Order: sequence, then C-alpha cells, then structure tokens
Amino acid sequence: MQGKFSEWDDTIVAIATPPGIGAIGVIRLSGNKSFEIINNVFPSKDLSIQPANTLHVGYLKDGDTIIDEVVISIFKAPSSYTGEDVIEIGCHGSPYVQQQVINALIHYGARLAKAGEFTQRAFLNGKLDLTQAEGVADLIASNTMASQNAALKNMRGGFSSILKEMRERLIQFSALIELELDFSEEDVEFADREKFLELLDEVSGTVKKLLQSFQLGNVIKNGVSVAIVGSPNAGKSTLLNTLLNENRAIVSEIAGTTRDTIEEIINIKGILFRLIDTAGIREHSQDIIENMGVLKSREKIQLADIVLYLFDINESNEDEIISFIREIKKQNNNVIAVANKIDCSDEKLLRHFKEQPRDVIFISAKMNTGVELLKEKLFNIVAGDSKLSENVVLTNARHYAALNEVQSSLNDIKNGIENKISGDLLSSDIRRCLHYIGEITGEISNEDMLDYIFSKFCIGK
Amino acid sequence: MQGKFSEWDDTIVAIATPPGIGAIGVIRLSGNKSFEIINNVFPSKDLSIQPANTLHVGYLKDGDTIIDEVVISIFKAPSSYTGEDVIEIGCHGSPYVQQQVINALIHYGARLAKAGEFTQRAFLNGKLDLTQAEGVADLIASNTMASQNAALKNMRGGFSSILKEMRERLIQFSALIELELDFSEEDVEFADREKFLELLDEVSGTVKKLLQSFQLGNVIKNGVSVAIVGSPNAGKSTLLNTLLNENRAIVSEIAGTTRDTIEEIINIKGILFRLIDTAGIREHSQDIIENMGVLKSREKIQLADIVLYLFDINESNEDEIISFIREIKKQNNNVIAVANKIDCSDEKLLRHFKEQPRDVIFISAKMNTGVELLKEKLFNIVAGDSKLSENVVLTNARHYAALNEVQSSLNDIKNGIENKISGDLLSSDIRRCLHYIGEITGEISNEDMLDYIFSKFCIGK
Repeated sequence: MQGKFSEWDDTIVAIATPPGIGAIGVIRLSGNKSFEIINNVFPSKDLSIQPANTLHVGYLKDGDTIIDEVVISIFKAPSSYTGEDVIEIGCHGSPYVQQQVINALIHYGARLAKAGEFTQRAFLNGKLDLTQAEGVADLIASNTMASQNAALKNMRGGFSSILKEMRERLIQFSALIELELDFSEEDVEFADREKFLELLDEVSGTVKKLLQSFQLGNVIKNGVSVAIVGSPNAGKSTLLNTLLNENRAIVSEIAGTTRDTIEEIINIKGILFRLIDTAGIREHSQDIIENMGVLKSREKIQLADIVLYLFDINESNEDEIISFIREIKKQNNNVIAVANKIDCSDEKLLRHFKEQPRDVIFISAKMNTGVELLKEKLFNIVAGDSKLSENVVLTNARHYAALNEVQSSLNDIKNGIENKISGDLLSSDIRRCLHYIGEITGEISNEDMLDYIFSKFCIGK
Repeated sequence: MQGKFSEWDDTIVAIATPPGIGAIGVIRLSGNKSFEIINNVFPSKDLSIQPANTLHVGYLKDGDTIIDEVVISIFKAPSSYTGEDVIEIGCHGSPYVQQQVINALIHYGARLAKAGEFTQRAFLNGKLDLTQAEGVADLIASNTMASQNAALKNMRGGFSSILKEMRERLIQFSALIELELDFSEEDVEFADREKFLELLDEVSGTVKKLLQSFQLGNVIKNGVSVAIVGSPNAGKSTLLNTLLNENRAIVSEIAGTTRDTIEEIINIKGILFRLIDTAGIREHSQDIIENMGVLKSREKIQLADIVLYLFDINESNEDEIISFIREIKKQNNNVIAVANKIDCSDEKLLRHFKEQPRDVIFISAKMNTGVELLKEKLFNIVAGDSKLSENVVLTNARHYAALNEVQSSLNDIKNGIENKISGDLLSSDIRRCLHYIGEITGEISNEDMLDYIFSKFCIGK
C-alpha cells in the first residue's frame, strides 16, 4: 500500500487550530503545489527559493486586496510532517479572516483536506506507521497524564517496536520452514522445532500481556465510571467534596471537560474517575433494597465500572450491609464497601467491624482519614499494580481485535508443531500471524481501512 | 509613556490559539528570558544560538518526562511582534498537552500573560501605535469584509497617518506661536493667522468627516438591527427567505455567528443586518395599531436601527398605511415602507400607489422582484454613498470620544484667533488639541488607560 497515490497531485489545505476566535490561527497547506499556490498570495518574496525551516512575515493578498498580515513557516519535502512541501500560515485568529485565507488558497489551486488527510499522507509517505498515526490522534484527545503517556508512547513507536521485533523473529523461522519446502523430498528440518516452540511461548506471553493491558488502556482513554450508592446520612456529599477539593484544580484546568450535574470527575494518578450520584437511592433511605428496583439507579449500577457503597458505620447493622452488598453484586461485581464516620464511632464498634473478614475500607470523609486508601483501592481495581508510565498499554480497539487474531494464529502454529503438521500448513499459519501483525502497523492495509482510521482524526491533522 | 517598564523583566506565556481541541495549538513566549526558559525544556539543541526566523522540531521535556513533539519558531528582538525575544511553540492540539507545556514554562520562570499583554508590549516597544493595536483586536473580531477592511486599515496605520499629518501641521503653527511668546515685548506675528485659520478649517473638515464615519463604523463593527413589522399575510416569511437564501451560504461560512430563533442575519455588501421578527404584531393582524402597545414589540421597534414595514399592496388601504407609519415614526424615525405582492396586483392599483409622493419600495418577495432595491435602500440608510473599501472609517468609541474633544478644541482655537486672544491662551488651546490627538495614537497615555484598552484583547495576543 505504501507508495504514491494518483490523487496526490492535489495540494490540500485546512485550518489546523481549533475553531473559534483566538490571537492566532494556523492554516496548513501540503502538496507538491504548495509553493506555487502560496506565491500567488504572498507577493513580497518568492518563497520557493527560501531555505527550509524558515519564517517569513508579510501581507497575504488576493490580487490587490490585503487579506491579513501573516507569518509563513516553510517546510520542504521530505523533511515535513507529511513528507511533502508544507506551508503553515499563521494569521490573525478571526474565523472570518481564516476563511478568506482558505478561500484564496483554494482559488489558486488547493483543495480542502479531509479529516486526518495530512496524517494519512504522512503514513503513505512512510513518515510514521499506523500505530504512530493513531498515537497522534490519541495525543490530541488526551486529557490526563496517563492518556498523554500512552499516546506519546504509541506516537514515538513503542508499540510498533515490540511488534517489529516479534515479526522479525517469526519471519526467521518462517524463512527456514519455507526453505524446508524447497527440499521437501529430502525430509530435512532446518527450523529447530523446539526453539520455535520456545519462541512461540515467548511471543504469546508478550501478546497476552498486551491484550490484558487493553482493559487498562480503555480506562486510560475513556475513564472509569463509579456509581456511589448509600443512604443520604452516609456522608456521600462530604466524601465527594473531600475527593473533589484536592482534585478540582486539576480537573478545572482541563478545558473541555464536561461537567454533568450528577457527575463529578476526579483524577487519581492520571486516570479519570467519573463519580455518579445515584439519586434514586438517596431519596428513600428507608427502603433501600426495594428502591434498587428504581430503574434509573439499577441502570446506573449495571452500567458503572465500579459501585462504591458508602454507609455510616454508627448507624448500620451488619446484616443490612451484607444483604445490600449481595443485592448490588447481582448487578455489578465490582463493589467497594466503605464505612464512613469512623471519627464518631467508639473503639469497640470499629474493632468489631475490622475483625470481620470482609473487605471494607474505613474512612472519615470529614476528617480526610482513610480517603487515600480508598483512592488507592479505586486505582488498583482498574490498574492493578501496573506502573502507568513504564509499560506499553493497548488503548486502541482496532489493535486489540488484530492482536486477538495474532494470539489465535500463534496457538494454531503451536498446535500444528505439536501435531507435526506439514511445513506447508505451518507456513500458511505463520503467514496468517504475520498478516495480522502487519495490519496493526499498516504494513498490510487497504484503502477502506485507512479511510476509516483517518476519518476519525480532526480536520487539519 | 513609551519606554521600559520595570515589570518587563518578566517573560510572559499564553496559549495563542482558540481554546478547544484541534490539530495543533500554539503557545507564545515573550521576554528577555524566552531563550533561557525554552532551553530548559527543549534539550536537543541550544536555541539561543540559532538564527532568527527559523523553525526547529524536537521533543519538549520537563526533566525526563516527554511532554510533546513540537515545532519551535524563533523570533529575535527587536524583529518580533512584541519587539522582544519571542518563541512560538507549535504543539499537538490537546488542551491537556497545552496546559502541560504552559506549566513547564511557568516552572522554568515564565509568567501567564494577561489579556492583550503581548500587544501591549508591542505598543510600549514602539512596534505599533494604539490605533494599530486596536486594529489588531478588531481584526480578530472581524466577521465581514467591511469589518475586516476597517480593522486592517487601522492595523496598517491608515487612521494613524491622518492623525499624524494633522498633528504635524498643527505643531508647525504651535511652534511659531510659541516663538512669538519669546518675542512678546516686540509684538511680532510669526504665525500667519489667515493661513492658520485656513488650516484649522481644513483639519476641522477632516475631523468632521471622521466623526460622521463613526455611525457607519459602529454599524460595520456591530451590525444593524432591522425590526420587521406587518401583518402575517404581508409575506414576511417569504421576504425573509428571499433575503436569506442568497445570503445563507455567506452567513453560515462565518463560524461563531449566533443564530437566535427570532433573528436572522444577512450580509449586504459587507454589513451585517440582523432581521428581527416582531411576533407581537404578527399574531394579531386585525388590530395592529392597538397591538403596537404590546410592550415587547414596542421595545423592539424602539431599539431597532431601522424598522421595515411590510404590507400586501392588494389588501391594504392607504389611510391605514399612512396612520400605521405615523404610529411607528413616533417610536423610530428610520422606517422603510415596503409594498409586497406586486406580482398579483393589477396595473391600475400599482400605478396609483406609485404616483403617490411617498417613499415606498415595491417588491414581489415571491418573484424576487425589487428585493435588490430594498437591499440597496437598507445599505444606503447606514452607509450613504460611502465606498466602504476606500475611506478610513472610525470604528472605535474611544477614538470617537477623543476626536470630539479635538473638534471642540479646534473650535476654541478658531474662536480665539478671531477674537484676537493672546498667544499664551492660543498656545494652550493648541496644546489641548494636540493632547487629544496624541491620546488616540497613544503618544499621550497613562497606565490605567492602557490596561483598560488591552484588557479587552484576548489572552495570547
């Protein structure tokens, strides 16, 4: 697939900065006519003879009409984002002015870029592979440290390099087995089956780890929903405030975070948790179990990734708590039981509760006691003992699907060797495995797949 | 006022692109520590020794942590927007990533810029005068060809150059009159009073024209509100559609145009007209005059710049029309009477109406007849016979207020000469006049005034 497309005679243009009014806006032009087009609207000097990676200030004009005073950045093929000649125009950040600039560039031969088309060209020119391109999109959408890290790692080729190594080692064996086919009448084995099985185990292990990281990757990308249930006197709002007060600064710094009235977002070690208040239960404390039937709450509990059940340790009896947790578990298995108000409870009661073999977290939301433990618990449920910044984490559903195919073909190869199937069939299984690996990085791709992937990018990227 | 501020030891930083998610975001750094700060987070090369106006690709890091892969633009003092060392960082357009970049730069010594602070520094460094700086803000906010033109003209110094010439000519006479004061005992006149009066007339004429252009300038900047009144069978919605259909493409191209349900915006030769439907009248066609009392409609008619009264030529009698227009004129003097449905009326009726000496526009909204004339009329009411693209138009209320003072001091000077007042007093009047001219361009300014002007800019500019 990698190679020149006929449609590449086009020079594409788009606004690369977010829509709206700002101090400046950037318009990006890429293609082999970039210089020809810009020279038509930037009369003060011939930009095509200027050195690469330089900046030029001047008026952008359509005929005699001045459109704006701009700063032009010049990037020359192949040392540019797309690998083509790229011109970036920094103009004043009025949507109207930007539109005028775009109109002028189109008038002189540019075409409006489709979503992701700049990155698609970068991919087709071999500037980055598919996982790196997808990393770019994820980085733009990233809103926490963890999602930024995961995306940067993909963009820099961390995942690609794992796949590349895997692929190269499989190809070695594949080559030996194909060689055996050439000598099939002589019944020789160039490929050491024992060593191959060892390799397969190793590769399978890596793939398994990557597949397991997808749950975490998904969480990093999309956050974790936590439904909070409990009677109103359990201290739910105090807990929310304690959790939020520390985090509010971080959360409000992230522009674009949507704040629903019933959802509050907290950031624990780079993972976003969406705390969802289950109002249906709050209103009727007397008959909680029955109220579980309230459709809205039930739905929230079912859809949540985690249910946090909060109770007042001084006003709860054990049987009630046990039966309540049982009720919740029918709908969602990830329950954290949290006993609140331990600052008001007497020693004896607390000791009694703590002696129970049940997994309860004891806190005082008011005194901010034990809340760190609760956050640790929430983080561990989704991230386990992973160190988010160290390992490559699978965040992309497309990669996950393809890696599942890789895993299943690895199993087929292994079974094949153990059952001593012919080199012919073995070779075909290996090729299938290599195919799916190549599909992740884009070495094997088709136009529809590429169009689909890049259409999810934003315009101008 | 122009000169170094002590607070300039600060290096300021802000996101210059609009908020939200985009392909790229630009962060701007300005001050004498720009290079020191950027070198702390861009380890791959020493940017301070790179030539001005060059681009550099690399990783932005805070310690060992990679924040993003960025493109750095280098501008060196005094050849930059602010006149200081300026670094622009093109990073990926995630609000989170941008915030991380800002945080790192602040960590290494930058300070968050206030709104307009970059342009304020440009002004204080003598890179542009106040009217040019205000032109920058207007250009960013521009949303039509006319507002773009007016802003560009200010930004390029069109208004400044008129004021500058005016000022220089007044200073010549002022110098001669001050010279007379040195020789006051000898009773000589160096300054030819006749020629000075001629000059004053000329300058007054220019100022008067500029003051007159403010109404237009205001309209260019803020648009014109047009209240449409008339009974429902007058064909109001057909007229709206005819007016809109042609314009919809243009209007919808302008991102950020707010579309109220009761307001439709059309663009006539670069001026935005907001068409306001007066529902109160529409609902009760039988008793129109009485319904004028409906508070809402009355208010709309009073507040509108223009009232467009539409009637069906075939179903109206002249007395009704006349009394209705009289009612409207009590509240708003700018009324356009429009007779609709001339395609259905018989020749005789039409001829009769047209023979009346009244100023009525005859249209068929359905057949799109006469609608161009109506648009011409709307445009002429606000723009007269001005050619929007040629003359400098006053768009700024601050300039308008100061120019009024200029005008009044010009009158004082003139009266003074005619009444043969002493050179002493004359000189003081001229200084007052020069003061107000200087206040417009910023040659005479104070910190409060500057803070007020620049606080209306957006952050990052």
